[in-house]
Amino acid sequence: MVKQERAVRTRKAILTAAARIFEERGYRAATISEILSAAGVTKGALYFHFSSKEELAQGILHEQDQQLPIPDRACKVQQVVDTVLLHAYRLQHDPMVRAGVRLSLDQQAGEVDRRGPFTHWGDIIGELLEKAEAQGELLPHISASETADVLVASFAGIQSMSQVMSDYEDLLDRVNALLRHLLPSAVLPSVLTAVDITPAHANAIADELRISPGQE
Amino acid sequence: MVKQERAVRTRKAILTAAARIFEERGYRAATISEILSAAGVTKGALYFHFSSKEELAQGILHEQDQQLPIPDRACKVQQVVDTVLLHAYRLQHDPMVRAGVRLSLDQQAGEVDRRGPFTHWGDIIGELLEKAEAQGELLPHISASETADVLVASFAGIQSMSQVMSDYEDLLDRVNALLRHLLPSAVLPSVLTAVDITPAHANAIADELRISPGQE
Repeated sequence: MVKQERAVRTRKAILTAAARIFEERGYRAATISEILSAAGVTKGALYFHFSSKEELAQGILHEQDQQLPIPDRACKVQQVVDTVLLHAYRLQHDPMVRAGVRLSLDQQAGEVDRRGPFTHWGDIIGELLEKAEAQGELLPHISASETADVLVASFAGIQSMSQVMSDYEDLLDRVNALLRHLLPSAVLPSVLTAVDITPAHANAIADELRISPGQE
Repeated sequence: MVKQERAVRTRKAILTAAARIFEERGYRAATISEILSAAGVTKGALYFHFSSKEELAQGILHEQDQQLPIPDRACKVQQVVDTVLLHAYRLQHDPMVRAGVRLSLDQQAGEVDRRGPFTHWGDIIGELLEKAEAQGELLPHISASETADVLVASFAGIQSMSQVMSDYEDLLDRVNALLRHLLPSAVLPSVLTAVDITPAHANAIADELRISPGQE
């Protein structure tokens, strides 16, 4: 293993451990030494990559943003839906994604930039919706950026409720219900009839991107 | 002041102090002794009302549920909207309501029943939507309980995003955008034209119920 590869693996191991500790203890209560012993790395290795707890949290949030995007779809509304479904799938299966979402919603992680994920997702979804608008897929009165904000914020609440009620087991059903309620107000009916928002489709996307549960 | 009245005031003072400490420190990091000194009551008085930190949190969540409901409206969809707008208004102005919402979303408040507020609000909105359905205000395919769940969950996310982005300053605008996106998928257009979802209407409701900012 070349040196750089090892560094990448160490960094990932530290972030994975930090994700677990933040999830168990909350951002504020978590300590660097707990993360150290969970990661099984030396203090020197940790501080080589991250100089503080805040940087660890930012690292997790950043990791979330580096996920493979959905390949281009002809229908941009479908691409938005697929982006949302894939994120829901990852939330069910990837501890790092879960930790990232929780950090953004953690009231106590005050020193972490919690706007990051909201603006990041708002930008991604907003850009796709602008393309959808340009292709004539949206209803004429719709503002792409406003609809993107509503979708991103609602999704944050849907995942919270799903986590509290079923530990994410019902997440894809709840996302499906959300999309059935939001999309008809924003998307042309003739476009909507061809859009797949089913939980089964979420699994198909994960297969397409060759993400297997727990293997990411 | 009769004895019972004093007990009610002491209980309220303790809950208000607990709300502030939970908000500042998070549920897990907060201690009873911090709450004691913030409330300015004796240990004996606190333990007379609440035997643990968990009971304090449940007390705050319960307090939230005791808020005055919206008076009956002829249009049940308007009553749903008014309930949502009033909650948004309270979230902007009442620290106890803010603390309650944050507790329900606090990942670290594991021992607290965080389902409570979701099911409580789901029940209130669900019951109103069933009446709306019975009055023929909803589109025929709509399930009142599913739409209630979507609305409650989305609202939770909208308030999170508003808190993170603007410390609740833009909350009524975001709620307005959410309602513009959700209601057309669930409510008969002829009903919707008469429904007021504006931020100005939220202030009018607060006036109607004689809630003045910070005076609750």
